[in-house]
Amino acid sequence: MTETPPLRDEREEADYALDSGIVQAVLEAVERGDRQALSSLLDGMHPADIADLLEQISDSDRARLVELCGRDLDGEILSELDEGVREDVIGTMDPDALADAMRALESDDVVDIIEDLDAPQQEAILEALDDADRIAVERAMTYPEYSAGRLMQREVVAVPEHWTVGQAIDHLRAAASLPEQFYHLFLVNPRMEPVGYVTLGRLLSSRREVALKDITEDSFRTFDATEDEENIAYAFNHYHLISAPVVDADGRLVGMITIDDAMQVLDEEHEEDMMRLAGVGEGSMADNVTETTRQRFPWLAVNLATAILASAVIALFEDTISRYVALAVLMPIIASMGGNAGTQSLTVAVRALATRDLTGSNVWRVIRREVMVGLANGLAFAVIMGLVGVFWFGVPMLGAVIALAMVINLVIAGLAGIIIPVLLDRAGVDPALGSGAFVTTVTDVVGFFAFLGLASWLLL
Amino acid sequence: MTETPPLRDEREEADYALDSGIVQAVLEAVERGDRQALSSLLDGMHPADIADLLEQISDSDRARLVELCGRDLDGEILSELDEGVREDVIGTMDPDALADAMRALESDDVVDIIEDLDAPQQEAILEALDDADRIAVERAMTYPEYSAGRLMQREVVAVPEHWTVGQAIDHLRAAASLPEQFYHLFLVNPRMEPVGYVTLGRLLSSRREVALKDITEDSFRTFDATEDEENIAYAFNHYHLISAPVVDADGRLVGMITIDDAMQVLDEEHEEDMMRLAGVGEGSMADNVTETTRQRFPWLAVNLATAILASAVIALFEDTISRYVALAVLMPIIASMGGNAGTQSLTVAVRALATRDLTGSNVWRVIRREVMVGLANGLAFAVIMGLVGVFWFGVPMLGAVIALAMVINLVIAGLAGIIIPVLLDRAGVDPALGSGAFVTTVTDVVGFFAFLGLASWLLL
Repeated sequence: MTETPPLRDEREEADYALDSGIVQAVLEAVERGDRQALSSLLDGMHPADIADLLEQISDSDRARLVELCGRDLDGEILSELDEGVREDVIGTMDPDALADAMRALESDDVVDIIEDLDAPQQEAILEALDDADRIAVERAMTYPEYSAGRLMQREVVAVPEHWTVGQAIDHLRAAASLPEQFYHLFLVNPRMEPVGYVTLGRLLSSRREVALKDITEDSFRTFDATEDEENIAYAFNHYHLISAPVVDADGRLVGMITIDDAMQVLDEEHEEDMMRLAGVGEGSMADNVTETTRQRFPWLAVNLATAILASAVIALFEDTISRYVALAVLMPIIASMGGNAGTQSLTVAVRALATRDLTGSNVWRVIRREVMVGLANGLAFAVIMGLVGVFWFGVPMLGAVIALAMVINLVIAGLAGIIIPVLLDRAGVDPALGSGAFVTTVTDVVGFFAFLGLASWLLL
Repeated sequence: MTETPPLRDEREEADYALDSGIVQAVLEAVERGDRQALSSLLDGMHPADIADLLEQISDSDRARLVELCGRDLDGEILSELDEGVREDVIGTMDPDALADAMRALESDDVVDIIEDLDAPQQEAILEALDDADRIAVERAMTYPEYSAGRLMQREVVAVPEHWTVGQAIDHLRAAASLPEQFYHLFLVNPRMEPVGYVTLGRLLSSRREVALKDITEDSFRTFDATEDEENIAYAFNHYHLISAPVVDADGRLVGMITIDDAMQVLDEEHEEDMMRLAGVGEGSMADNVTETTRQRFPWLAVNLATAILASAVIALFEDTISRYVALAVLMPIIASMGGNAGTQSLTVAVRALATRDLTGSNVWRVIRREVMVGLANGLAFAVIMGLVGVFWFGVPMLGAVIALAMVINLVIAGLAGIIIPVLLDRAGVDPALGSGAFVTTVTDVVGFFAFLGLASWLLL
């Protein structure tokens, strides 16, 4: 370990981002077709960093780099790549190089890679695997997408529940092969149902004659193989789990999920929530113009429809506006404030639903709170905008109209911002998906209607 | 372990959310003042779930529950609570009960709790601790907030780098006390600098005479005690770390960070990004009306200022609008589409900056992409809205104006959506904070100006 590279090198100084000097050097080696320089540059890099590099360079540079690497392209790099780029890279890889890369991976990583591929590509990879791995992968693929069965590794260390520490240690020391990473020893009963676990640290520090069942951890939890990976990530974070056994429909041990996989799922779920809230389906920095345009178009189209609806409301009051143009100047303020207040409420609600902090027990209290907050901020901004209305346009009644509309729209924003995500969640729809469009439609329509309606009633 | 409760009980069926039946039963026990029923209900619950329960009930119920629990209130529950609720609970706890609770915690959990408290409350808790714990906590508090030094646990297992597997195992088995959770054995040189680590699984499965330095893991990385916890969480996820040593300014081992803590930081950082993007400072479901109103007011005020700016642009064209009221009907569409497209770009950019996927190496390519995507979607929606303009209002030139304004605003939206977060990031400001307000100001102002300006030029 004396050759360990310095630990806080330049790459790490920049918050662990890829150093652009390294990217430059790699690109130059690719340009020159210098296979040796390239391979010595990549040798010093972590697969996750090489994956980042592949995502950050242009499509053509990437294709040339992959071709130059040939069989040296590590399977782990593939498993670190974004879906889109990964498909690209796999498409340009030599079939033998691909087979080599896949054979070097653990079966759960192979599953993670091939589940996104087309059937012919899947076939090609499956054929390249050893029999044991192929069977493991095919079995995992029978579980639903995004389930524990897909996420888990099949390699676990399990021992009979009645064993002692000494028996377990002897068994481990005699084992021909152990999983690459494991932190717990699972105890199973004769029906192969997991009944508890012991940390390796506890095992090492206990006397040989101690019964394993006397040193099990309280935190023990099992997951069904069909359980959604989002729930698993949540449970790992909530209960501070490190690893957990996965069981089949009969309760028998079939695999294990470790916290590093759960952490990655948590990160991906967050990304999904964030992107959905912003109306971006998916998308990474590596997508090209066509892909990105296609990802963003649908939500812009939804937004156009809602904006036209809001315009139709304005059109009802064309007459009023033509007699009082100041209304056209001020009306976007009411809509914008409503949209913002609604987005605040709905973001808090979407997050709280994801963290299970918004449940049947407190939903009514939270709804009441959002309405009261809307009222309080509505009144504050009503005073401010009322004064702006009076002093900018010199018409006290205009001030009153804008103040009233502000209060109405901010209360409705609070209400819509909490109720819409809760209803979507109850209906089994991801509240991050679509809440934004619904809420801003409500605040636009209510905002324009309240402001222009009050104006035609009170001003004309 | 035969008494292990059924693992997928009702509470877990509902995606691991608290069962409202349990909440109800707890509230009834509190209502009746039935200490015994309460304690038997809470005994069966995980501290994290009890914390959720405390967050979901009303302030008065919570105070009564805490009073009834008295000394039975577990320190772990405190460490699971949201900041706001925790301050509340600590405020209502009997000082002796609080001292008991804190004494039962690990020093890093104590640090996590007391760093948010007022000085007198901190003093009271520090005095209640044993000398060793107090010194550990006080030392941790000398590191900056949100640093590795605050996050780490001081208890580590380190052995000389030249030891063999047998020596290490004998040492562990003889150790009087080991950390509650540990997954690696750190190797240190005579200057106490960590130089590598060995997983416990590897240790257990290797022959006794094998040198530890021959079975170290490649993934080894150390962190400075002053390193920001956000970077640490990112590095754990990126490099799939399980635990990592923390070193002081001289490179000496001072503690260890484990992945469960890193996962929690990752989750909190995500929440922060999401809340900041939505203009919500902080805030949890347990905050009351006053706190929530105060959290949301500042960003609504910023939004009001930018909305007034946009109104000022409209006011420049009052004359045009009074001659052509259809403009007032259509102008919010242009602004709304620009705002949405800008939010899409900026959300993708903020996320990519957080995951280090947007760097100096690809920023120009991404900027070009965002502009091209804006142009492509702008053209698509220009055609749609041009036709709407023609058929709704029967004025071809109005269609042309709205189409042109759409293209201009969507290109600007793409540009602003990427450049503003990148510039904020370069300036050392969190791009999630404020990007939204800046971008929608740009799209509102540009949208209204382009649409109304083109209209006065081409239509009148």
